[in-house]
Amino acid sequence: FVENELSLLRPADISTVLNEMDTEQAMFVMDLLTVETAAEIISYLDEDVCIPFIRNYPSETIAQWINYIDSDDAADILNELPLQTREEIIAFLDSKEKADYIIDLLHYEEDCAGGLMAKELISANINWTVIQAIDEIRRQAEKVEKIYSLYVVDNQERLLGRVSLKKIILSNDETRIADIYEQGIVAVKTYQDEDEVAEIMRKYDLAAVPVINERGKLMGRITIDDAVDVITEQAEEERQIITGISEDIEEDDNVLMLTRARLPWLIIGMAGGLMGARFIGLFEKDLAILPAMAFFIPLITATGGNVGIQSSSIVLQSLANKSMIGVNYFQRLFKVLIVAIINGVVISVIVFGFTIILGQTVNLAGIVAISLFFVVLLASFMGTITPLVLDKLGINPALAAGPFITTANDLLGLAVYFSTAHMLYSF
Amino acid sequence: FVENELSLLRPADISTVLNEMDTEQAMFVMDLLTVETAAEIISYLDEDVCIPFIRNYPSETIAQWINYIDSDDAADILNELPLQTREEIIAFLDSKEKADYIIDLLHYEEDCAGGLMAKELISANINWTVIQAIDEIRRQAEKVEKIYSLYVVDNQERLLGRVSLKKIILSNDETRIADIYEQGIVAVKTYQDEDEVAEIMRKYDLAAVPVINERGKLMGRITIDDAVDVITEQAEEERQIITGISEDIEEDDNVLMLTRARLPWLIIGMAGGLMGARFIGLFEKDLAILPAMAFFIPLITATGGNVGIQSSSIVLQSLANKSMIGVNYFQRLFKVLIVAIINGVVISVIVFGFTIILGQTVNLAGIVAISLFFVVLLASFMGTITPLVLDKLGINPALAAGPFITTANDLLGLAVYFSTAHMLYSF
Ligand SMILES: [Mg+2]
Ligand SMILES: [Mg+2]
Ligand SMILES: [Mg+2]
Ligand SMILES: [Mg+2]
Ligand SMILES: [Mg+2]
Ligand SMILES: [Mg+2]
Ligand SMILES: [Mg+2]
Ligand SMILES: [Mg+2]
Ligand SMILES: [Mg+2]
Ligand SMILES: [Mg+2]
Ligand SMILES: [Mg+2]
Ligand SMILES: [Mg+2]
Ligand SMILES: [Mg+2]
Repeated sequence: FVENELSLLRPADISTVLNEMDTEQAMFVMDLLTVETAAEIISYLDEDVCIPFIRNYPSETIAQWINYIDSDDAADILNELPLQTREEIIAFLDSKEKADYIIDLLHYEEDCAGGLMAKELISANINWTVIQAIDEIRRQAEKVEKIYSLYVVDNQERLLGRVSLKKIILSNDETRIADIYEQGIVAVKTYQDEDEVAEIMRKYDLAAVPVINERGKLMGRITIDDAVDVITEQAEEERQIITGISEDIEEDDNVLMLTRARLPWLIIGMAGGLMGARFIGLFEKDLAILPAMAFFIPLITATGGNVGIQSSSIVLQSLANKSMIGVNYFQRLFKVLIVAIINGVVISVIVFGFTIILGQTVNLAGIVAISLFFVVLLASFMGTITPLVLDKLGINPALAAGPFITTANDLLGLAVYFSTAHMLYSF
Repeated sequence: FVENELSLLRPADISTVLNEMDTEQAMFVMDLLTVETAAEIISYLDEDVCIPFIRNYPSETIAQWINYIDSDDAADILNELPLQTREEIIAFLDSKEKADYIIDLLHYEEDCAGGLMAKELISANINWTVIQAIDEIRRQAEKVEKIYSLYVVDNQERLLGRVSLKKIILSNDETRIADIYEQGIVAVKTYQDEDEVAEIMRKYDLAAVPVINERGKLMGRITIDDAVDVITEQAEEERQIITGISEDIEEDDNVLMLTRARLPWLIIGMAGGLMGARFIGLFEKDLAILPAMAFFIPLITATGGNVGIQSSSIVLQSLANKSMIGVNYFQRLFKVLIVAIINGVVISVIVFGFTIILGQTVNLAGIVAISLFFVVLLASFMGTITPLVLDKLGINPALAAGPFITTANDLLGLAVYFSTAHMLYSF
């Protein structure tokens, strides 16, 4: 019965279900499937589920699956296994070529083009005719599942260009590849960062991109599905940074991991809060004269935080889009200033009115409104400048849209508020 | 000279440059290019740049470009033009087929599969042989730039499956399509949401997906490059919601748009701040007895905000991944509680110590530490429950990781802090 149900599901769907099962159930399901389907499911599993799961099996079984898994995913899996298991599996592989592919890929860092590429691709020598290229496709057909085009290389295997399958179909068997191939195609280098690779594929609308080494030799191919995973992870990572989570976690991770990922930013926020307490303490006398000042502390800090985060978010977006190339810093800050003045005036006027309605003196309402205006101004400035500075320093600018800017703005807001009050009271 | 430089650039790169130019410069550049290159550049331009720009040209010129632009992008452009211009352009088009394609696509909503698909694709009747399919490829080759597979249809044009170009190349001319096509392929319906389409293409690693109507008729094809744009926009949109920006803006938008996008959340935050002021006012007497309580207000509100945002972020991620299917609400909340207790204890103990070091009484240190513990607990609970409730109500749950949860937690924190103090002092 289970077997029947399973054959109706696609491997990617079975993987989703397996992700949620315990080891025993998952092993039971895997036993019902053909080696090929099982292999495909393995390649779709989340890495944190896949590795502990397959370690329940002997190296020989894992090798049988690896036979059917593309070299990019195979290398990712082997990379996570202990050295000895890794070597056993490679020794058990059916084809020497596959073993060489994997050994080659194990050299690359995970987050560069080399770590993303697969060795499976079809290349054609520039001196071949179309029929020779078709023979090559036939030879490799089993091995390379998705073929969009053939990569054209010279005798030293240096990448020269590509021929689409469409052109192969529409050309005469005797046509020379040299006469129909497309030159000047986009390629990436093995050491290029994965984010850069994804951005290139997005920009030029590519379904696959060839990877070359420094001497121009064709080393592999990155397909868009793996670049899509990079884009998705990147967005997830950015959200985690913005929301103050310091490790890559998921709700179903264990309590220890969840705690560890959350504590660092909580402690930094706490340190900021304690500094704030110390700072307000310096103005104890002003507070004694005008105790109602304390009422507006949350308003001041919250507004500073909100304005700061908004500002950094807008800068983050232009950093990501690499637009604003022509715009100079001075123009940028001038515009930020105008927007801040408008927002600041609107909010300060409303707050002034409501503070009086709440029954406070014009004096206090004035202090609150004036310092709020300056808080908006300063928080806009900080929110704009911080991501730009972080980016220049090579630090991920998304940090500027999270707890960091909130903590800084809380302190900034308190400083503005209490010094404004102190000055206005000195008169 | 400019012309020479231009021929070395790819259309997507020229578009990036044009995005930053003024109209006059851009028109000058466009004059130097062939109609085909100009058309490709137009299709790469940002929509907000493209539409105002092409309105400088007569309908006949626009029609010449549209001749070379895929129907999906063509329909997107025409959709933004006034009705009369739109009809003029359609009348000027070279091919009746292209006009029909565009008219058909104009019917669909922008954010569903129909609004994403192009009509350019190659379909093969199930009764054809391979050579007939190749003839069809030859007929359509000019029109369909990227061909990954042929979609197989019956006599009523209902989608039955697909044949990859690889299979076409490796099959005999006389082989029947019926014998080589792949059944049970993934397809989407015209009315499916674009986010769903993108998620399906990501999940099944598709480079293209066919679009069918309710009766199974093949209506168009969505290519992965357009799904990648949906994924990128989605991530950008989520970031804007989380950081309290209420409209889709960019740093180079004008001051009015920037202000309008930022004010709504600032005003909501301000309203929260004013309510906070009113609330603290209720405890004026307690503050008079223990004025140093005011020092710790920012610590309390900041910690509440940070914990709340972290918690919602973790829930958001599981909502996005659609994992956690099997996990029930009770188990989830129990785990949240454990993590909160650990974080709460750690932070409270540290704060207790530092408060005493700062020279405060054990009494005050106790109040701060105990209320901080409950703030962490409550903020975790709120941060977990809010996105789940919003999601159930059909509201975008990302709202729960932004200024909304910060504002709510500021108030919650104040309530816990002042009532704890009040109660402990009643003894
Ligand atoms: Mg993970
Ligand atoms: Mg890898
Ligand atoms: Mg694109
Ligand atoms: Mg792959
Ligand atoms: Mg993959
Ligand atoms: Mg990365
Ligand atoms: Mg705050
Ligand atoms: Mg836009
Ligand atoms: Mg559209
Ligand atoms: Mg995928
Ligand atoms: Mg398209
Ligand atoms: Mg597009
Ligand atoms: Mg959308």
